[in-house]
Amino acid sequence: MKSVLQAEPEAGLNHFLDIKHLSSQLLIKLMDKAQAFINAKFHLSHHIDILKNQTIAHLFFEPSTRTRISFELAAKRLGADVVNIEANASSLKKSESVLDTILTLTAMHCHTFIIRHQQSQFIADIATQVPPEVSLINAGDGTHAHPSQALLDMLTIRQFKNNFSQLKVAIVGDVYHSRVAHSQLAALDKLNVKEIRLIGPEHLLPETNEITRVKCFTDLKQGLDDVDVLIVLRLQKERFQQAHIVDLNQYYKEYGITEVKLKNAKSDVIIMHPGPINRFVEIDPKVAYGPNSVIMKQVSNGIATRMAIMSFIFEAHLAHL
Amino acid sequence: MKSVLQAEPEAGLNHFLDIKHLSSQLLIKLMDKAQAFINAKFHLSHHIDILKNQTIAHLFFEPSTRTRISFELAAKRLGADVVNIEANASSLKKSESVLDTILTLTAMHCHTFIIRHQQSQFIADIATQVPPEVSLINAGDGTHAHPSQALLDMLTIRQFKNNFSQLKVAIVGDVYHSRVAHSQLAALDKLNVKEIRLIGPEHLLPETNEITRVKCFTDLKQGLDDVDVLIVLRLQKERFQQAHIVDLNQYYKEYGITEVKLKNAKSDVIIMHPGPINRFVEIDPKVAYGPNSVIMKQVSNGIATRMAIMSFIFEAHLAHL
Amino acid sequence: MKSVLQAEPEAGLNHFLDIKHLSSQLLIKLMDKAQAFINAKFHLSHHIDILKNQTIAHLFFEPSTRTRISFELAAKRLGADVVNIEANASSLKKSESVLDTILTLTAMHCHTFIIRHQQSQFIADIATQVPPEVSLINAGDGTHAHPSQALLDMLTIRQFKNNFSQLKVAIVGDVYHSRVAHSQLAALDKLNVKEIRLIGPEHLLPETNEITRVKCFTDLKQGLDDVDVLIVLRLQKERFQQAHIVDLNQYYKEYGITEVKLKNAKSDVIIMHPGPINRFVEIDPKVAYGPNSVIMKQVSNGIATRMAIMSFIFEAHLAHL
Repeated sequence: MKSVLQAEPEAGLNHFLDIKHLSSQLLIKLMDKAQAFINAKFHLSHHIDILKNQTIAHLFFEPSTRTRISFELAAKRLGADVVNIEANASSLKKSESVLDTILTLTAMHCHTFIIRHQQSQFIADIATQVPPEVSLINAGDGTHAHPSQALLDMLTIRQFKNNFSQLKVAIVGDVYHSRVAHSQLAALDKLNVKEIRLIGPEHLLPETNEITRVKCFTDLKQGLDDVDVLIVLRLQKERFQQAHIVDLNQYYKEYGITEVKLKNAKSDVIIMHPGPINRFVEIDPKVAYGPNSVIMKQVSNGIATRMAIMSFIFEAHLAHL
Repeated sequence: MKSVLQAEPEAGLNHFLDIKHLSSQLLIKLMDKAQAFINAKFHLSHHIDILKNQTIAHLFFEPSTRTRISFELAAKRLGADVVNIEANASSLKKSESVLDTILTLTAMHCHTFIIRHQQSQFIADIATQVPPEVSLINAGDGTHAHPSQALLDMLTIRQFKNNFSQLKVAIVGDVYHSRVAHSQLAALDKLNVKEIRLIGPEHLLPETNEITRVKCFTDLKQGLDDVDVLIVLRLQKERFQQAHIVDLNQYYKEYGITEVKLKNAKSDVIIMHPGPINRFVEIDPKVAYGPNSVIMKQVSNGIATRMAIMSFIFEAHLAHL
Repeated sequence: MKSVLQAEPEAGLNHFLDIKHLSSQLLIKLMDKAQAFINAKFHLSHHIDILKNQTIAHLFFEPSTRTRISFELAAKRLGADVVNIEANASSLKKSESVLDTILTLTAMHCHTFIIRHQQSQFIADIATQVPPEVSLINAGDGTHAHPSQALLDMLTIRQFKNNFSQLKVAIVGDVYHSRVAHSQLAALDKLNVKEIRLIGPEHLLPETNEITRVKCFTDLKQGLDDVDVLIVLRLQKERFQQAHIVDLNQYYKEYGITEVKLKNAKSDVIIMHPGPINRFVEIDPKVAYGPNSVIMKQVSNGIATRMAIMSFIFEAHLAHL
């Protein structure tokens, strides 16, 4: 199934569902493409028409501002039209209904779907049922994956650090429930980073015997020691409060990233965050907007990265014709 | 009133409100125009600029995905800009408020309005009050009419069957409450089909002494005998459950279209449905996506048909200047 | 702070927050620009590309149809792309969150923000915190100001009346709570009108010892005597009913503008209203759509005025580069 659903290096990218199924060559090619767009300033406004006459559909089952707008601007800056499908659980709760909607849009000559869904693997499940001319892009599914975010994060790291194989990268927060972290882990592994540190309260750290280069830390200070890249996860407050797991002030005291705590990392550490930040919950805004932060660079790279993903998918379409 | 509201063959199309008020010549001209767009592949993406510099407004008082997006893509593929007015009963419950909104948009140089409203004849009522430079397109009003759907259905039939006057067409379901069926009936009558069969539980069939070529059937098998075209209506589950009229399983048993039941129709019968389908309520997905189904063709024709309607309205505008 | 936030005549327009902070020269220059767009018919559709490759963001915390669409069409008719941020109090209740959203959009190369917020001075507060390349346009903040509305009103007056210094202008209604009225007052004062009459129930009239040319009237007949321009405010029914302040029928009897009452004004008085009108609450539709009404002209001028504001802001951006 995996090879059908996702990409084969020669064949190009049919769907963009999960970092795990991408080869590291394709991962790098996607970064190269995004970087090329940035070098030409194509990510800043509409200069090229790669997707001219194409209609891209957004199918968001969870509310999203920044990811949706990032994809929308990426599509428009490639010359595409965008339609937004107001998707909610009540009218489209079954995957069959979603499939019917996709097939209907396809009959309207719309072949690429950017989907966000609260259920893990929902999008991959749909992908097994669509005809070959339809491509799905995962914009976040449950706690499973958020591969375009991970890809833009890797691009950002590469812009600031030379060699992945020399890097120590720390991810701080609720790694267990974070689709962002899961995709970052897969990407960092494929890019052969030296060491991945997962830092957080014990019950929020995953069991990761899959990846040998991963080390877990419950102590932030130890975990930050000598790291080159520090990825701060957004704390999903709703989930935490519901489960009475964490007192937010206590969390900030132990794991919130402040200027003081940052001194444990390398002096040229870069600070990343998928956004939007919770001020004084997982991060001090002084750090988020401080000299080591590359958070706004991530946002800007997000447009270029999504342009690269859509370009590759469109190339795969052309190869099919 | 009718001749003012709607179209006169020589003068072109001022509003598009109801199939009943269209001459059969104009009906055919609209189909020809839609077919011409399809032949030139103009319905697939933005190739022509007939509506360049025009702004089309959507005013939807009922939620809609497919019809709204079909009109939106049709407008964009003619080069128009589209604005969506978030319309709800609370802020615009009086027709005067809707009229004020339309006049305001007109002052912003927006002259064509695609309107869907839960109240039958609401749009026709507004049409009597707008100035001559304003055109209204009915995208569905109450249980009254859905004329663009009927028009695209006729186009679809014409693509698969040669001669309307030789056809037996069956409509299955809640014909009584269906605006789609009402517009289809008017169109089939104007196009002189040989026979129209209405099939469903007795209380859901209308009294149709208006149209002599109509026959009603409560028995699906009898009704399907020898038909060339089978139109399956969407069962509005909300309404049914509210009125305790129909047990859904029982309905499917008696009127749901399955491969077995389909054998009663002609072997080259085409299956149509306005969408979205209720799987295993009014239709088996095997039939909906089977070899006799033209449902996806209907969707694709929808874009071209709506392009034709908007083109004709724009031509009428030019004639007014 | 004022000079930083708003405009300096030589430097151009950084933000557009409040009429009060604009020089009268700049006010006039903006009207001249809007008039130039109108003369060239540039406000009617997309003819120029001043904002080509620019993305304008709408950040509306209060629902709005006409103002949002007016800005959206203005942006598009200057060649810009528009993104709508669905903003609501729950997810963005703190000004820090709004600031984070703005900075994120800025990283996506979106530099101009059209903001409406229920809280007075909220937008000005944000403006003190954004980097110099970001411009904010106030589309209405609480009861404080609605400067683009006042500017389009001044343009409309100028189109019908020669010399502001000879004019008597009346504003009727809940002046106290009206952001529209507050901005109109500031603009009329800067443009040196002869006399401003505020007419309404005593508790709805502001204390205006600030502006010497203002006279207050609780009697409509007296207030209308000899006026050249009559601005009717929209009565915010929600607020009134909540406070049991006014019986709507009584209000209409005393302050509703009818053809009979209008006879107290000059025969060539122009009638203005920011829209949408409440029929038979503050105005008789016969007056609103009658020969003295310029209400639809206001709407049309709204597009040109907002194009002028965005053009000036873009010029100021260029000067910064």
